[in-house]
Amino acid sequence: MPIHAHTTASGLIVLAEPMAGAASAAVSLRVPAGEVHQPEDRQGVAPLMGEFLCRGAGGLDARAHAEALDRLGVRRGCGSSSRDFELDAVMLGVNLDEALAPLLDTVTAPHLDDAQFGPCRDLQTQSLDALEDEPQERAMIELSARHLPAPLDRHPEGTRAGLAALTAADARAFWAAHAGPAGSVLAVAGAVDPEAFFAAAERLTAGWSAASAPAGYEVGPTPVPAQHHVQDPSEQVHIALRWDAVPANHPDAVLQKAAVAVLSGGMSGRLFTEVREKRGLCYSVYAGYGGHADRGGVYAYAGTTAPRAQETLDVLVHELRRLHAEPVGGDEFRRAMVGMKSRLVMSGESTSARASSLSFDVAVHGRPRTLAERVEEVAAVTPGRLRDFLDANAPGPEAMTIVTLGPRALDAPGEPAPAGVAAAAAPA
Amino acid sequence: MPIHAHTTASGLIVLAEPMAGAASAAVSLRVPAGEVHQPEDRQGVAPLMGEFLCRGAGGLDARAHAEALDRLGVRRGCGSSSRDFELDAVMLGVNLDEALAPLLDTVTAPHLDDAQFGPCRDLQTQSLDALEDEPQERAMIELSARHLPAPLDRHPEGTRAGLAALTAADARAFWAAHAGPAGSVLAVAGAVDPEAFFAAAERLTAGWSAASAPAGYEVGPTPVPAQHHVQDPSEQVHIALRWDAVPANHPDAVLQKAAVAVLSGGMSGRLFTEVREKRGLCYSVYAGYGGHADRGGVYAYAGTTAPRAQETLDVLVHELRRLHAEPVGGDEFRRAMVGMKSRLVMSGESTSARASSLSFDVAVHGRPRTLAERVEEVAAVTPGRLRDFLDANAPGPEAMTIVTLGPRALDAPGEPAPAGVAAAAAPA
Repeated sequence: MPIHAHTTASGLIVLAEPMAGAASAAVSLRVPAGEVHQPEDRQGVAPLMGEFLCRGAGGLDARAHAEALDRLGVRRGCGSSSRDFELDAVMLGVNLDEALAPLLDTVTAPHLDDAQFGPCRDLQTQSLDALEDEPQERAMIELSARHLPAPLDRHPEGTRAGLAALTAADARAFWAAHAGPAGSVLAVAGAVDPEAFFAAAERLTAGWSAASAPAGYEVGPTPVPAQHHVQDPSEQVHIALRWDAVPANHPDAVLQKAAVAVLSGGMSGRLFTEVREKRGLCYSVYAGYGGHADRGGVYAYAGTTAPRAQETLDVLVHELRRLHAEPVGGDEFRRAMVGMKSRLVMSGESTSARASSLSFDVAVHGRPRTLAERVEEVAAVTPGRLRDFLDANAPGPEAMTIVTLGPRALDAPGEPAPAGVAAAAAPA
Repeated sequence: MPIHAHTTASGLIVLAEPMAGAASAAVSLRVPAGEVHQPEDRQGVAPLMGEFLCRGAGGLDARAHAEALDRLGVRRGCGSSSRDFELDAVMLGVNLDEALAPLLDTVTAPHLDDAQFGPCRDLQTQSLDALEDEPQERAMIELSARHLPAPLDRHPEGTRAGLAALTAADARAFWAAHAGPAGSVLAVAGAVDPEAFFAAAERLTAGWSAASAPAGYEVGPTPVPAQHHVQDPSEQVHIALRWDAVPANHPDAVLQKAAVAVLSGGMSGRLFTEVREKRGLCYSVYAGYGGHADRGGVYAYAGTTAPRAQETLDVLVHELRRLHAEPVGGDEFRRAMVGMKSRLVMSGESTSARASSLSFDVAVHGRPRTLAERVEEVAAVTPGRLRDFLDANAPGPEAMTIVTLGPRALDAPGEPAPAGVAAAAAPA
């Protein structure tokens, strides 16, 4: 399907992708109000906005605003990420026209009243505290904190000190400074008439502005990758690691994703085969690629019992390195590529996935990409291109940050024992 | 879309729902090999099959079988529930013909070799142990264990004793006894030619049989509902409760779902408004309905900090009772119904959701239901019917089982203090 594009007088990029046969319409509004833009001593204001924005907007109090959207069956959510803040919603296409005003008001005209601030801060503090019960998530957060330079290393739920210091006025100032039409993207996919949508977006965002132009952010010194342990009474040892890779807008990003698909793209992927099937080391093991316009990374996770943890780390790192050292087989390559292509085409059947992709692509690539373009990019990956990429991008021994969280620390990853021997030695 | 149906010579019910414009085809094969059918002293064999079935099938060893499916981009998973065992898969429709044989082999012709059993049992034991790091999930499991009669009260991951006693021969016997064409359903939705699919299913399941006819299960005495506490060093107090409701195939089940939608169907739902917005008591609170052919239940969950836990329980139970005591407003009713209808129509855009619904409906209703039929059922709910249902089905004070898991026990739910007072008293 072609993507229709429009830029409003206020500078908001608006995209619409009609999807044949869709009954739903999904909306993604992405604004540059991510965690990197928080004041250093007010960390927590970005995720808190996910709650504070829902406390009344556009002349309707919290209750009336929630009712206006529920009356139209609009399922929605909003929250911050490192660089952005995204409001996403999905509804029946027939309700899009009427829903758009109260939906956009959430971001463009929130009340942010003093009286509503206290409960929002309490809830955000609880959200931070609740992570104590989520050791896997904490391991991944610690990994970012240890690997990335400031301010990309920030905790996604904020800090206790930042939340304690935060006031309603701080939250209003943060939103006014960063949430404006310039640098933002509004995307819709599904049952939508692009021209009508553009006209409505133009009208509904006419009075929207930010206090200043979209801000960049200063990146601090990059930490030296190392191995870290977080002592925790958790049952499992949670192993998380990552290293730097090409940014998501680099032409080689698709090759990095193909490499990850060889490791972790299906049940015959190398990690699944070596860690889970051959050695029975752990139930959950995966690798992934994550990237934005300025940087990218490969990460991996495994959760296992303490007696199996060292072998799991050894095998995991061995497989990550072996990918760059030994050729990817012809059949292995084809499986990885078929998997990538299938997942991509299937994601194109979800209006929500398409809307979110459209706004993400503008943030990362500076323009939307059609599903067909992305499928062609995958189809253009050849064994030779992947081989060259893997040769040129092997992570050095000093490149990986490793975080373990659990009842005991691990040694640096070593050469794993052969599969049969280790499996026999593991406790039943 | 019409649903096409076929019954194979061996007695397998096969359903196909072509979906216009879909590129993917999703498959759900549901067999009556759920946890209730496990031998009392071999609990864990049903969930273990989720791993053991993936260790070679139809003449292909584990590796070759995984590769055969990955080569066609088939994303799949399988696992047990209380009554059933489900294999689900999604792929591009163009690959369905070729993928069907290795996919069905997983269930109809698994190798279940002795040599593969040990690692599978190790992984299943790890899966059970890993729940120690998931207090919310443990609270919900404890709730079922406390509320339901045997064997519906069983732990979904099995027991340590059951897994320790389990042998490969036990697993083979379990599968041979319960996984046959009679009582099973194979459903496909999306890009599919029904007649070609029926012919393939007929051919591929011709040699499939179970050792015996589908078994029922004896239900033990129903526990007396009560309040239970599980002492745990978790950060939050996890509150879970449930009471009995009409079975899913009862004509009033749609009314029970409508009642739950008033509580928890959107951001203006009563639980969200009273517990989260007005009092800021907790981040996560919801209610739901779950049912099968023989019984149903309403459940609710809230996770909060220890100082807020008693008030959260009080408000939660108060709201659950108030639903039956005070009329549902006209606008409140309409919001709940629009939400139900929207979610239903939107679920119809996912081939995976449709395939799973088709096989579930046969298990519960004895026949598949079209999306249109389900939408009509929702449209036929009136305020008066809901009112009558709520009047007749108020849970008595002795009906609720309550489980709390966390650092301290709670009192029985009492009348909550007014919102303003309690909020002021809560620690910031």
